[in-house]
Amino acid sequence: MKKLKRSERLVELTQYLLSRPHTLIPLTTFAERYQSAKSSISEDLAIIKEVFQEEGIGELQTMAGAAGGVKYLPKAHEARSRAFIEGVCRQLEQADRILPGGYMYMSDILGEPQTVSEIGRTFATLFADVEADAVMTVETKGIPLAYATASYLNLPVIIVRRDHSAVEGSAVSINYVSGSNKRMHTMSLGRRALKEGSRVLIVDDFMRAGGTIQGMKDLLAEFRAQVAGVGVFVESGDVEEHLVTDYVSLARIQDIDTKSKLASVTLGNYFPMDEAHSAAQ
Amino acid sequence: MKKLKRSERLVELTQYLLSRPHTLIPLTTFAERYQSAKSSISEDLAIIKEVFQEEGIGELQTMAGAAGGVKYLPKAHEARSRAFIEGVCRQLEQADRILPGGYMYMSDILGEPQTVSEIGRTFATLFADVEADAVMTVETKGIPLAYATASYLNLPVIIVRRDHSAVEGSAVSINYVSGSNKRMHTMSLGRRALKEGSRVLIVDDFMRAGGTIQGMKDLLAEFRAQVAGVGVFVESGDVEEHLVTDYVSLARIQDIDTKSKLASVTLGNYFPMDEAHSAAQ
Repeated sequence: MKKLKRSERLVELTQYLLSRPHTLIPLTTFAERYQSAKSSISEDLAIIKEVFQEEGIGELQTMAGAAGGVKYLPKAHEARSRAFIEGVCRQLEQADRILPGGYMYMSDILGEPQTVSEIGRTFATLFADVEADAVMTVETKGIPLAYATASYLNLPVIIVRRDHSAVEGSAVSINYVSGSNKRMHTMSLGRRALKEGSRVLIVDDFMRAGGTIQGMKDLLAEFRAQVAGVGVFVESGDVEEHLVTDYVSLARIQDIDTKSKLASVTLGNYFPMDEAHSAAQ
Repeated sequence: MKKLKRSERLVELTQYLLSRPHTLIPLTTFAERYQSAKSSISEDLAIIKEVFQEEGIGELQTMAGAAGGVKYLPKAHEARSRAFIEGVCRQLEQADRILPGGYMYMSDILGEPQTVSEIGRTFATLFADVEADAVMTVETKGIPLAYATASYLNLPVIIVRRDHSAVEGSAVSINYVSGSNKRMHTMSLGRRALKEGSRVLIVDDFMRAGGTIQGMKDLLAEFRAQVAGVGVFVESGDVEEHLVTDYVSLARIQDIDTKSKLASVTLGNYFPMDEAHSAAQ
């Protein structure tokens, strides 16, 4: 790479860091890449760090010493996530979303890459320190959320299949009972998809009683893998008994009026309830 | 936002543009956001433009006049895409990838968000000017590729289901015959997922004869929507007759040795063959 001016280096450094989240980059890499003194690079990084912090883009961790370097951790300010999810809640409350069986139509919302990316950033903030080795979801709607989360955390994605697909090779299958209709289902994961002892972050788009999440946890046990965390985009409040209790939700369907076909949707358990809100409950 | 110094503004502008591809942003937006003169913003953008071009990150289109502004088009240099896909071809040629039925195990490769993102950038480069309104794929493995492509093109994603899922509301179904095993399948798409007259870019992970792609094209016809382009990650060379001929592939499985269970994988039709390569054919 040709020697860059200060201003060019700032642009290049910014894009370089943004495209390599959760990756430790030694200062020498930059010094060589830009043919600049480490002290200049350090000054550049200090500027970037401040802007990233101010703008709620994320943290720039700098580690001193021979093994040192810089690591970009994408993070969303809680206020930003809250405002964003509040907006999603209002979208979910729009007319015509309630389908037969009390399901909610979310394909349009989950079809927007910007929305999916913002949800991923929120999960990546929440699970930044759980030291997961992979993000897992079950097909179909959880897949974009898992990739968005994984790309901010720099982790691979593991997709559990609802049928045993021909293209995964030998696989491990488990049965699970979906909490909503008490029916038996099967999910499977290719043997080579997951190393023993891995720590896995589970992400899904929707949770009622948690049967599907519990299925993924059972599958992880078959692989002697650990659950590093569970994040769901929307949970249903219409649940008698949860099969899974240790999870984080971003939004919660409180109530569905079957006559008007309208739902009341609030923030999920990720967001501490404020005074006004809890008083109104 | 507080008034930023030049250096801070460059960092902020870079991240702002990178997170808003294919979006026209008026200069006044930046001038107000950073409390700076338009002339200063223009100078900043000129620097960013040059770095983005040099680094093969993409184009910065500037439009003059009252309705003018700047638009970031993510693009990958052909040389970069070629080198990247060459690497993927070598990965696909590794041992133990051939499954019964001549399928190829690709879940590990498609499980890497960085790889998926790079494939998306390649498709976004290729289809930057087709003026698509949406990116469509069929579950399951094409989904991450569709999102990666769509996020670079700033388009919504439409996921076709292989079964008629309960959570899409009323849907349109079609039957299609997969070219590989000549069996009849069904795919369906929720009625509200697609507006009449839309231009749709089809993206998928794998194509043999093209039965699945043809199914998506038939489904688009049901919605009176148009095909803006077809991009497949890997195509199989083991095809007697193609059902779909107008497509772009990034990689191509030339041959599978069933005894050694090894494949020979080359660049797809997106890349013009070089002399040395075509001489060796």
